[in-house]
Amino acid sequence: MMKLYHHPLSGHAHRARLLLSLLGAEHELVFVDLQKGEHKSAEFLKLNRFGQVPVLVDGETVISDSNAILVYVAKSLGRDDWLPETPAVAAAVQRWLSVAAGELARGPASARLITVFGAKFDVEDTIQRSHAILKLINEELSASDWLVAGQPTIADVALYSYISSAPEGNVDLSAYKHVLAWLARIEALPGFVPFQKTAVGLAV
Amino acid sequence: MMKLYHHPLSGHAHRARLLLSLLGAEHELVFVDLQKGEHKSAEFLKLNRFGQVPVLVDGETVISDSNAILVYVAKSLGRDDWLPETPAVAAAVQRWLSVAAGELARGPASARLITVFGAKFDVEDTIQRSHAILKLINEELSASDWLVAGQPTIADVALYSYISSAPEGNVDLSAYKHVLAWLARIEALPGFVPFQKTAVGLAV
Repeated sequence: MMKLYHHPLSGHAHRARLLLSLLGAEHELVFVDLQKGEHKSAEFLKLNRFGQVPVLVDGETVISDSNAILVYVAKSLGRDDWLPETPAVAAAVQRWLSVAAGELARGPASARLITVFGAKFDVEDTIQRSHAILKLINEELSASDWLVAGQPTIADVALYSYISSAPEGNVDLSAYKHVLAWLARIEALPGFVPFQKTAVGLAV
Repeated sequence: MMKLYHHPLSGHAHRARLLLSLLGAEHELVFVDLQKGEHKSAEFLKLNRFGQVPVLVDGETVISDSNAILVYVAKSLGRDDWLPETPAVAAAVQRWLSVAAGELARGPASARLITVFGAKFDVEDTIQRSHAILKLINEELSASDWLVAGQPTIADVALYSYISSAPEGNVDLSAYKHVLAWLARIEALPGFVPFQKTAVGLAV
């Protein structure tokens, strides 16, 4: 059975867990105590040199990076509905994985790191970056129910966790009606698991 | 023939151009005048809502995001040596595409944006992030000539441009001997095209 090393308040870990659950892939959750620094222990660094959750272990295969886990899970389960393989559609999915690792990390994920984990980022810059990317995603979703190819793919999964939790970082979503409708569509998918909410300001 | 909308000082554009050249794919370069704001013109925004180079146009297909272009080019040319399709190896490639969009963008690419384009980022934080990711990449390359599967893949291409130009952002590479040897290996590949150097401090 696949093992997912995770922490319930990590949106990157939720991203991986969400796909496993949506695809009905049996898996075991292994809690990594970030507060105790378990992700920087010698044992964990053997799994992932970067010292980050999530990590997926499937037999002898070890996959780090949440986007990489999405690719691995979709491909190893043969789900080319969730990761289409034609060049143009695969590239369109990749574009959103890049956004998840880039604009989303630097925007809403960072805004939440400030309020939930006490990260020392520039608040104003982070909130402004968050709205810049949300505006673009909202425009994209004005024409289609899903980010790519009119169907749910790993692109939607990659963006869900940190957009749904953006209000925890004081990023107001109310102006983005297409984004809100898309979040609700994801939450209505069979197998959906929610991302645990945090009391904002609570050090964890 | 494929058209690549680019700017010679954009590392993201070079990333796309480098793969096209390494794979011997005939292409036309279309210069986008970033200084004149052509990337924010109504015409260009129709190609890429994000207002960024590069964009690849192949007949009716329009691909934005440099990583997405790498995926499109490798797949459409059927080069599964450059983008292997087995789940674990495809995931390993994806991990580095995430690093290219994440840690590399926030590290060496941002450091160069400060010196070359006058971006108002925190210099100390950016340089420190650059060395953190370079240290990890150097460790990774201590065991293998290439980032994934012991052969050149789009993962190497995705990381090349902003690592090779890191010194332009005052990020010294001399401590990273495995990285330096890897840069030289990429530069020795048939079809390699260099990333244009800028006189640091010259506003462009």
